[in-house]
Amino acid sequence: MKIVMSDTINFKYRLEAATPRTGNGGITRGVSVNEFPISKNIAGVSMWLEPGAMRELHWHANAAEWAYVLKGKMRTTVVDPQGNTHIDLFSAGDVWYFPRGYGHVLQCVGEEQCHFILIFDNGNFSEDHTFSITDFISCVPPEIAAQNLGITTSEVAMLPRKEVYFAQGQVPSIRSGLAFPVNAPSLVSAHRYPLSAQQPRLVPGGGIQRVVTQAEFPIAATITGTLFEIEPGGLREMHWHPNADEWQYIIQGRAEIGLFLAQHNFAKDNFEAGDVGYIPMGAGHYIKNTGEEDLVILIAFNSGRYEAIDLSSWLSGNPDDLLEGNFGVPADIIDKFPRKDRFLIP
Amino acid sequence: MKIVMSDTINFKYRLEAATPRTGNGGITRGVSVNEFPISKNIAGVSMWLEPGAMRELHWHANAAEWAYVLKGKMRTTVVDPQGNTHIDLFSAGDVWYFPRGYGHVLQCVGEEQCHFILIFDNGNFSEDHTFSITDFISCVPPEIAAQNLGITTSEVAMLPRKEVYFAQGQVPSIRSGLAFPVNAPSLVSAHRYPLSAQQPRLVPGGGIQRVVTQAEFPIAATITGTLFEIEPGGLREMHWHPNADEWQYIIQGRAEIGLFLAQHNFAKDNFEAGDVGYIPMGAGHYIKNTGEEDLVILIAFNSGRYEAIDLSSWLSGNPDDLLEGNFGVPADIIDKFPRKDRFLIP
Amino acid sequence: MKIVMSDTINFKYRLEAATPRTGNGGITRGVSVNEFPISKNIAGVSMWLEPGAMRELHWHANAAEWAYVLKGKMRTTVVDPQGNTHIDLFSAGDVWYFPRGYGHVLQCVGEEQCHFILIFDNGNFSEDHTFSITDFISCVPPEIAAQNLGITTSEVAMLPRKEVYFAQGQVPSIRSGLAFPVNAPSLVSAHRYPLSAQQPRLVPGGGIQRVVTQAEFPIAATITGTLFEIEPGGLREMHWHPNADEWQYIIQGRAEIGLFLAQHNFAKDNFEAGDVGYIPMGAGHYIKNTGEEDLVILIAFNSGRYEAIDLSSWLSGNPDDLLEGNFGVPADIIDKFPRKDRFLIP
Repeated sequence: MKIVMSDTINFKYRLEAATPRTGNGGITRGVSVNEFPISKNIAGVSMWLEPGAMRELHWHANAAEWAYVLKGKMRTTVVDPQGNTHIDLFSAGDVWYFPRGYGHVLQCVGEEQCHFILIFDNGNFSEDHTFSITDFISCVPPEIAAQNLGITTSEVAMLPRKEVYFAQGQVPSIRSGLAFPVNAPSLVSAHRYPLSAQQPRLVPGGGIQRVVTQAEFPIAATITGTLFEIEPGGLREMHWHPNADEWQYIIQGRAEIGLFLAQHNFAKDNFEAGDVGYIPMGAGHYIKNTGEEDLVILIAFNSGRYEAIDLSSWLSGNPDDLLEGNFGVPADIIDKFPRKDRFLIP
Repeated sequence: MKIVMSDTINFKYRLEAATPRTGNGGITRGVSVNEFPISKNIAGVSMWLEPGAMRELHWHANAAEWAYVLKGKMRTTVVDPQGNTHIDLFSAGDVWYFPRGYGHVLQCVGEEQCHFILIFDNGNFSEDHTFSITDFISCVPPEIAAQNLGITTSEVAMLPRKEVYFAQGQVPSIRSGLAFPVNAPSLVSAHRYPLSAQQPRLVPGGGIQRVVTQAEFPIAATITGTLFEIEPGGLREMHWHPNADEWQYIIQGRAEIGLFLAQHNFAKDNFEAGDVGYIPMGAGHYIKNTGEEDLVILIAFNSGRYEAIDLSSWLSGNPDDLLEGNFGVPADIIDKFPRKDRFLIP
Repeated sequence: MKIVMSDTINFKYRLEAATPRTGNGGITRGVSVNEFPISKNIAGVSMWLEPGAMRELHWHANAAEWAYVLKGKMRTTVVDPQGNTHIDLFSAGDVWYFPRGYGHVLQCVGEEQCHFILIFDNGNFSEDHTFSITDFISCVPPEIAAQNLGITTSEVAMLPRKEVYFAQGQVPSIRSGLAFPVNAPSLVSAHRYPLSAQQPRLVPGGGIQRVVTQAEFPIAATITGTLFEIEPGGLREMHWHPNADEWQYIIQGRAEIGLFLAQHNFAKDNFEAGDVGYIPMGAGHYIKNTGEEDLVILIAFNSGRYEAIDLSSWLSGNPDDLLEGNFGVPADIIDKFPRKDRFLIP
């Protein structure tokens, strides 16, 4: 039987090679189901901000936002439907989560550029579902804006007349409200989880895995994130996720990723830093480090739980006589099959 | 940038001006996604019944029903899947909720006409999803109906041969089973919540708000209702609902309602008594009383929880330096911005 | 009014008369929304296996699997996302449930053929969503398979080069791992419920009903099953299910089933052993034994809860004056109407 390795199974998007939207200290590249048809349930954005620059106050009508900071220091504010505001500070390796519809702003507050990956739990995420405060205020009649803001219509006329999107502000000082007043230090806040500070799982076979699910980060009901490091030659073995689609962003290194879609439909592709991969729920796949340095990959699942079934775990749980019958090979081959879960194979 | 105020953003439907369906003491006007494309997730009906008239025994296959009584006295019976029947009496200001698929009947039992608004948690609600008892019985073979009802086929022939829909009955006496036997008086029953009897929130700025969520009315898992009164000139400020679509029915007065759909898409329209408005989940909007009397508006959300984020609440939670950067205006303008949630502004 | 008894309301599929897929000791016939458009939310399969034959290791990406064994003895293994394997033995009358995405295998282990009905909680279930282990391994590059399985690429070349689907194995002995080691005997296991061993409900009117919901079988969150026996002439009365679609498989006997879809749309058809019927959520229906032997029918609902509303239960809960008004008939006819739930009528 011929393997169907159709060009129509496209599960790689070269996100960092895409033409960005730029302006006022910000650069953004996005990928949704519009550009990348396989990504039906998860969308993503790679964004850069200059020191002091901000992605202005906005909300997303149809998606929650999960983020991982790659570089720099950031301040976010987020308002919830109870009227509470939370202000958090983020460094490289930290994660945030804002539920669908919560108003928020992102600002780069350190001395270096910020770079971060935003992940949304809806593949149909787009600018059409993103509502910016200046767009809102500039659309309503000036009399309404004046009544609402407690200013005159002449003062309304001084406000931006269209969406600002990126705004260049000043790097705030501590005194200006950089930190949300908290009574006691904490490692995890309502919207912030320091993933890189987590004691990681050292995976036999040459890997490091950090995972944050709803269990560790209660507000993150719809997205689980994992940061995975694999040594050269290592294979994250053949497996699938029964409960979620998978969105991948290569932070460092080179990988071969294979995707199995049943009925002899299979595709594999080579990935490098800045590329995005997508694995639909239930589809078989593997990830192999094909480079000479560690592969570092950020992965998000559209579920608050992490579930995976590995080929080695599956095989090792079945009686030998059954495997002999299934594969039609002698016992000495079955004897060599894995006898426990491998997960990562050097 | 030009504001897109397209005629294609139609979020008003003149429900009480629509051609009704009439017969046997009843008048009904409905609006679903078929007539009003924006209303994807909520449909509504305005119905009148003469004393004694009933909307016959029926069920809805794809929607739960929430209702608010505007006028008159009503009796409902509802059967649940455990085989229990509940009979309730309603007056103006009372609310009912019948879960999807529960069999029920509505009858006007006082000396005056009844008028009530029905709201369904599915924009695709229609007569095609409404199953009436006489339609059911008249469709099956007479032998089946006879066996099922314990009557002869000659007696089956005396039953209606098609859907009755509205039936003219007698105003029942107390003895005829007007009230469901209860052991003790109660304010709230399984299917009835007396919304107008609720101690309301007196809103600074000139308004009164009554709200019934699943917390107050446990069976109403999919719809929250609110009755809102706003004094002349008052502005329910710019806000959005992160978790639900909003369906509005103007009971009294005149309003300007503005709808913001991101990307500089904005529409506003003038509403009067009998008009229905629709705001999709997450969309920005405001409501201003533009008349000379109090505006009274019935609002339903397709969620058992009430969530809203107000512009003033959002702004007041953000540091001044950030707002200066976002809006690009001097500190003296930002100083005038709201410092707390306003909700309603005179 | 003319009853619309359109040929387009097709709710019967002659499953056992369909052309099967066969091979290596197995025969399978399936029905999904592709062949049977009304079956939007539930699909089914009738499968036969010879002694020793197996439906190879596989998983379903988009559906959970509920099964009822009609004949023979079966062994299943299933792996869950925590890496646990469960092995169970089944005889005629037993039920299994495997959540979406769990890897599993089915093998006939007795001395006679096995016959069983598989039911999936997704009408769009198909081979395209079924992933077999040999298909997966034969699709990936041999080097990946070798690294993953711990064998050489020459040994990989001995494995099947395409999907096996059905494999002919040996009937396993007890010692070969037939039973999953358990410390104590149990009637219900994580994935097995012995439905025919349940103390049944003896239904007045001449019937026997066995039901298994999530309450009795906790893992079965998405499917409720019932086995129903009706004496000749008996009528499972007019009723509907507020919460679920219904999928029917006639095991024995003959039935007339009527389906009411509102707006005077009605269809009825004659069913015999091997036929599948489908009733959409909320649609009115009845089942009458039109044969000379007991009717035995397997029914599945796509919900973990069982809910039904019967015509007699509904009528008996309403006041007489209301029914007189609704039906426009004298009190002496209403007096004959059922005074309690009948469920099954001789």
